[in-house]
Amino acid sequence: MPKAVVFDAYGTLFDVQGLSQVCEDLFPSRGATLSELWRRKQLEYTWLLALMGQYQDFWTITRLALHHASGTLKLPLDAGQQERLMQGFLTLPAYPEVPVVLPRLSSRYPLAILSNGSEEMLGKVVQHNRLQNYFTHLLSAESTRTYKPSPKVYDLAIRAFFAVPEKIVFVSSNGWDVAGARAFGFKVAWCNRWSLAPETHTSEPDWTLESLEELESLPL
Amino acid sequence: MPKAVVFDAYGTLFDVQGLSQVCEDLFPSRGATLSELWRRKQLEYTWLLALMGQYQDFWTITRLALHHASGTLKLPLDAGQQERLMQGFLTLPAYPEVPVVLPRLSSRYPLAILSNGSEEMLGKVVQHNRLQNYFTHLLSAESTRTYKPSPKVYDLAIRAFFAVPEKIVFVSSNGWDVAGARAFGFKVAWCNRWSLAPETHTSEPDWTLESLEELESLPL
Repeated sequence: MPKAVVFDAYGTLFDVQGLSQVCEDLFPSRGATLSELWRRKQLEYTWLLALMGQYQDFWTITRLALHHASGTLKLPLDAGQQERLMQGFLTLPAYPEVPVVLPRLSSRYPLAILSNGSEEMLGKVVQHNRLQNYFTHLLSAESTRTYKPSPKVYDLAIRAFFAVPEKIVFVSSNGWDVAGARAFGFKVAWCNRWSLAPETHTSEPDWTLESLEELESLPL
Repeated sequence: MPKAVVFDAYGTLFDVQGLSQVCEDLFPSRGATLSELWRRKQLEYTWLLALMGQYQDFWTITRLALHHASGTLKLPLDAGQQERLMQGFLTLPAYPEVPVVLPRLSSRYPLAILSNGSEEMLGKVVQHNRLQNYFTHLLSAESTRTYKPSPKVYDLAIRAFFAVPEKIVFVSSNGWDVAGARAFGFKVAWCNRWSLAPETHTSEPDWTLESLEELESLPL
């Protein structure tokens, strides 16, 4: 029996494709392209800065990534548009099964979020979706001044639950995060929402799901 | 006057788009898509593994990235096809201006390559293009067991030339590498071959070029 079930946030609980609608409203027919590049650069900048031994908080990185994406696509943003897109990150919708699965799962295990998002960003998106009662911890990479997949970030869950890694079930839709968590020693469920090919740079996850609903019937 | 001019390899001296032709021969009309995803995953895996505190050599990473890309695009590769694509990395063509610029530049400054490529990969692609006489050093990330943009890799140039960072001119076409080298303290020339928007996660390069030919007239 696991000591806790720990979720990644963006793409796992909260629908990052929700951003493409905000982008689409501002730039008709370019929404998906802008939101996809924005998200990709956001991830890249976390990895690159961490590897450079430098740190910027996740809100700043999100803004820098947006600047790069709008520059690349030649879609200039005024201050109001930029703010509207940034706010989109604080009001991402949860995936439809999330409000169904979390109440049931939280009656069986302590639940937490472990995310690259800043404490403030996590708090806001959780509140926006009225999910705060289901989690015992919102663990942000912020306190480590680095980002997943650094072991320093996964270690936050170890310290929060006084557990060895194999007693934590970690759930993520992001293949790179699944790989990092697996290498760290967690039991890992990959919620492969987008039917992607597995990442090949580390061992495979313990379970592969199509939706978080399957978590309830796993032999955790 | 710089103590050395140090070049990135892939995308800077050697045309990684050369891979798309090999891919295109195997998978007509899918060559550019396959080679682009392959290259992107190759970079991602270097950053992710380094951040996870793990190491795989660059040849292995290149192969793992190819597996993922072919899986993602549902373009299965038999052993012979895989080998042909991997060999493509050892026989990438130099950009057209390279054999013109290097002889002139090497008469003024010591030149080196500093690359994520393994020693063997670098040696082969340099020999294939008959450029070995222009470089005093081929510096591979291999000995550091991590990858650019880690400062440990850029530091190889410091040790090779007994120089402070600001006495090294570093030349790269890869925005993420330009950012890492700039943060390390090198003087940096970004050869922006593809007219990309600048990366925004660190300060700007000292110079931005359209082709390596412009190096000759820079006030280095």
